[in-house]
Amino acid sequence: MRNTRSVGTVETRYLDLPAPLPLDSGRELRGVRVAYETYGTLAPARDNVILVCHALSGDAHAAGIAATAPAESTRDGFAAAGSPKGIGWWDGMIGPGKAFDTDRFFVVSTNLLGGCRGTTGPSSADPATGRPYGKDFPVLTVADMVRCERAFLDVLGIERLAAVAGGSLGGMQALQWAVDYPDQVNTIVVIASTHGLQPQGVAWNAIAREAIMRDPDWQGGDYYGTGRSPDAGMGVARMIGHVTYLSAPALAGKFGRRLQSGGDIRYTLSEPEFEVESYLQHQAGSFVRRFDANTYLHLSRALTYFDLSREHGSLQAAAEQIRARTLLIAFSSDWLYPPAASEEIEEALRKAGKPVEYHLIEAPYGHDCFLLEEARQTPIVREFLNGSRA
Amino acid sequence: MRNTRSVGTVETRYLDLPAPLPLDSGRELRGVRVAYETYGTLAPARDNVILVCHALSGDAHAAGIAATAPAESTRDGFAAAGSPKGIGWWDGMIGPGKAFDTDRFFVVSTNLLGGCRGTTGPSSADPATGRPYGKDFPVLTVADMVRCERAFLDVLGIERLAAVAGGSLGGMQALQWAVDYPDQVNTIVVIASTHGLQPQGVAWNAIAREAIMRDPDWQGGDYYGTGRSPDAGMGVARMIGHVTYLSAPALAGKFGRRLQSGGDIRYTLSEPEFEVESYLQHQAGSFVRRFDANTYLHLSRALTYFDLSREHGSLQAAAEQIRARTLLIAFSSDWLYPPAASEEIEEALRKAGKPVEYHLIEAPYGHDCFLLEEARQTPIVREFLNGSRA
Repeated sequence: MRNTRSVGTVETRYLDLPAPLPLDSGRELRGVRVAYETYGTLAPARDNVILVCHALSGDAHAAGIAATAPAESTRDGFAAAGSPKGIGWWDGMIGPGKAFDTDRFFVVSTNLLGGCRGTTGPSSADPATGRPYGKDFPVLTVADMVRCERAFLDVLGIERLAAVAGGSLGGMQALQWAVDYPDQVNTIVVIASTHGLQPQGVAWNAIAREAIMRDPDWQGGDYYGTGRSPDAGMGVARMIGHVTYLSAPALAGKFGRRLQSGGDIRYTLSEPEFEVESYLQHQAGSFVRRFDANTYLHLSRALTYFDLSREHGSLQAAAEQIRARTLLIAFSSDWLYPPAASEEIEEALRKAGKPVEYHLIEAPYGHDCFLLEEARQTPIVREFLNGSRA
Repeated sequence: MRNTRSVGTVETRYLDLPAPLPLDSGRELRGVRVAYETYGTLAPARDNVILVCHALSGDAHAAGIAATAPAESTRDGFAAAGSPKGIGWWDGMIGPGKAFDTDRFFVVSTNLLGGCRGTTGPSSADPATGRPYGKDFPVLTVADMVRCERAFLDVLGIERLAAVAGGSLGGMQALQWAVDYPDQVNTIVVIASTHGLQPQGVAWNAIAREAIMRDPDWQGGDYYGTGRSPDAGMGVARMIGHVTYLSAPALAGKFGRRLQSGGDIRYTLSEPEFEVESYLQHQAGSFVRRFDANTYLHLSRALTYFDLSREHGSLQAAAEQIRARTLLIAFSSDWLYPPAASEEIEEALRKAGKPVEYHLIEAPYGHDCFLLEEARQTPIVREFLNGSRA
């Protein structure tokens, strides 16, 4: 049975970093603002903090019901079914008695650097000009995002983390935390993620970015205030992403080859004929309304760059840096972030003598399992987090 | 060892159909021209004809070296490696002593209806107006393509076919032939194909078409003579196609995560950073130069429409129509046209008491195996075609 206890109504808050943020590229960002939410209560010893990191299309609103519900939910696609309006993207995992148990932990969720939902990103005003960064926004890495999260937690007075957790790009951030701040992270929870995206994933991301950048309304990235934005290209990018997040059997099970008309084909190029075509159009339309194209480009680029082997010479060398206990969860049908990568991380950690636990969950939905298979992740995560306090 | 005997230099020829071609949509096409090539010698009894049907991006030039080699070869992607300029897209399969043995068979290859390489398609002049059809070109089905091939062979005085063969969309045509003209086809060779594309494949095709139709230079399909064409969208469509034609391990094996720079990342959004990104850009560029966007739209639509179950009430009912001996070949790594579909066809034919042979080839390249794994298909096809003469 689904645990229906909720953290209740939440409001996203904002915090301005006191100092410029240095970036891997050699540039720095001034006046960085971070959007965040917290759930649960910070222990007096400040030793019960879990940082939750979102994936490409998420935001700070991970749990509960948004006080001001946006028109388009981050909980879309297959995950939208039966979800109340304004619900957080990982509400099934965060709350009283849930995987990330707010009766015990103080869960912090931020919108990541480069985002478009409150944290400084390409659509934010550049303090140097007062105008949106647009094409001048610096190219980011996952390490930059983590550095921003570190600086943000400094302001909150939180030094150590009981856990860093996330799926997909969120899992990359958790790994980066463990490598970059080994003394400040007790455990990491890395779900449906990888130490370096496989070349096919690099290709999908490149194609999605091409779809956006080839849209003339992208205007080289400086589309803010022009009355035009690359919605057409963004829609294509989202459709590509959506299909890669799901498995072929999941699409077959949900839509089959059913026609929109119910009856026969209508001999049309421009109208959706199949239900699956109509579904993708709908997903693209709602995503375009809630997400900024330049943010998509930057996050997509950062997640393809992420590569612990390149950064440290080898995956083994990266694993040697880690001191956190590691939980890895992968899903059998996830062909975008296949289980093999989690198994490679597990092996490197074991070889380095580090504590690691790996679970392969047999589930049919593909990469989106990390958002959908909450019931099956819950006992694994709860058990693992026992004893994770500093 | 690769069989290097060749049919030699060939010239594409053209033939005009004497009568209007009726279409499934209720419309008809007048003045249809068919581009074709032939290899080998027609037996006096006209009983040694094999019709070879191409897939989405092919043309009539299936074997030998083109007398006038086009700037961009249809043999691209992984198949381009080591191929001489102007070589036919299935040259490894068609020729003296090859799978489709021109010492024994008269092999006929046409550019399919709706094409852009000599056969009437959206870029052809509409006899009613003298201008290119553009958006007025009728939406086609695989059955329409087969009807066109039938009409073309009538002009050549060929009634019965020893075999109809093709991969992917070409295999759909072979199946359609066997169902629509059961008395005129002795055998069909259906490679890496299906009786109805899986929903994920429908989705990929829909996204590729969206990429083209959302390009403002598409102009609703009437871009001919405007000096602009939807190259940007077509490039994205081709990149999507290309990744779906290959397997993830094939991309990993060929490119890994190697960077273009050889050294470190360059922090760029707009330039290719990974070798696989650069490869896709190159493939997109050469495809755009040789292929018409409206043809892409029409062929993509037709192959998603193809559905023997919808057409006949069930796959079993369609199988009951077939009298040809059937050879099915599928490839283990083909995730776009997975082996399961071939197995369903085999089962339906067996249940109907029809002669059928199914081979699953373990090969790593994905859907493109039908163009790449020539050496392993050859003995299977040769053996099967023994006794296929009428």
